[in-house]
Amino acid sequence: MTANAEAGKRVRRPTGGAGPLLEIAVGEFITRGYDATSMEDLSRAAGITKSSFYHHFTGKEALLRAALERALNGLFVLLAEPGAQEGTPTQRLRHIVVGQIRLLVAELPYVTLLLRVRGNTETERWALEQRRAFDAQIAALVRAAVDAGEIRAGVEPALAARLLSGLVNSVVEWYRPGRPGAAELPEDVAHAVFQGILPAAS
Amino acid sequence: MTANAEAGKRVRRPTGGAGPLLEIAVGEFITRGYDATSMEDLSRAAGITKSSFYHHFTGKEALLRAALERALNGLFVLLAEPGAQEGTPTQRLRHIVVGQIRLLVAELPYVTLLLRVRGNTETERWALEQRRAFDAQIAALVRAAVDAGEIRAGVEPALAARLLSGLVNSVVEWYRPGRPGAAELPEDVAHAVFQGILPAAS
Repeated sequence: MTANAEAGKRVRRPTGGAGPLLEIAVGEFITRGYDATSMEDLSRAAGITKSSFYHHFTGKEALLRAALERALNGLFVLLAEPGAQEGTPTQRLRHIVVGQIRLLVAELPYVTLLLRVRGNTETERWALEQRRAFDAQIAALVRAAVDAGEIRAGVEPALAARLLSGLVNSVVEWYRPGRPGAAELPEDVAHAVFQGILPAAS
Repeated sequence: MTANAEAGKRVRRPTGGAGPLLEIAVGEFITRGYDATSMEDLSRAAGITKSSFYHHFTGKEALLRAALERALNGLFVLLAEPGAQEGTPTQRLRHIVVGQIRLLVAELPYVTLLLRVRGNTETERWALEQRRAFDAQIAALVRAAVDAGEIRAGVEPALAARLLSGLVNSVVEWYRPGRPGAAELPEDVAHAVFQGILPAAS
């Protein structure tokens, strides 16, 4: 691939394959919004020609799909881990919450993009369906934890599942790479879910 | 005001003042995005002429400002209530969390718009500053609760304040008017903050 053929001042760096191109595209999608980003913008940001870009991806929607697949794949791999499959419902939920925050920290742009999807294209609707399927598995586990008597009386499973998902996903709004305390963040969020964000002393 | 002068099929209803126009504008901003919405779109949605619209608001940014002021005003009125000013830091925080969810339920479109602001215009930057000022007061109260020994050891105030704000604000993502359980929602969210979303039984 010949790099930098057409780009002017906005060249970042020559890129060497589909992976870096995807990362650059996701950054542009998040900054400009998917609808407002053109293949022109993407090739300029990557510092390569449009035709080099098309060598790797058939177009904008293929990039979006690859990015959303990466985030969704992380979530479904997590659900298949032994820690998410074995043990009490509460133990499984804790494993999943910790894993979700780890994934979010490791794959922040991809997860951010996934959470911004609103269903305007076929790919976005597909991603929304996948998210709903993930959420449904969490909601079923929350209900199982309540039914097994592991959770304090009065907790409504559907509401708890929504608050759980809301708390976990809200981390993308403020977490930035290299923030102090990132290593402890997964366990800290799990504590907040099971003991409270502001648990009373004693 | 003469209504329906120019609008075609998309007429909703004749409107009788600034209040309904603001509500209609906020709905359009949320659906289309603020940047993508024109005064043309707004007058069509309201079923009035553009000049009637300009009689009430000088333009799009004035509408945005009025909408954001309404949401922010609700937040700062809440902070000034006796329940947010008197008692222990934890009691004050509980009062504020309950009040925030009540405000969100009562003023859902205005709060939703406020939470989507990204800082692209002067008005948006002003609203972001106001939100930061509100968040700083909450963070100070969280720190006061920790310093007073009211909160279990190990809770980091800055992180707890972020998670608190994330949990409360995530409710706009799924709450819809008329949802069953809306009356209990403020207390349910407060429980989740102080006891956990999934508190262990016994």
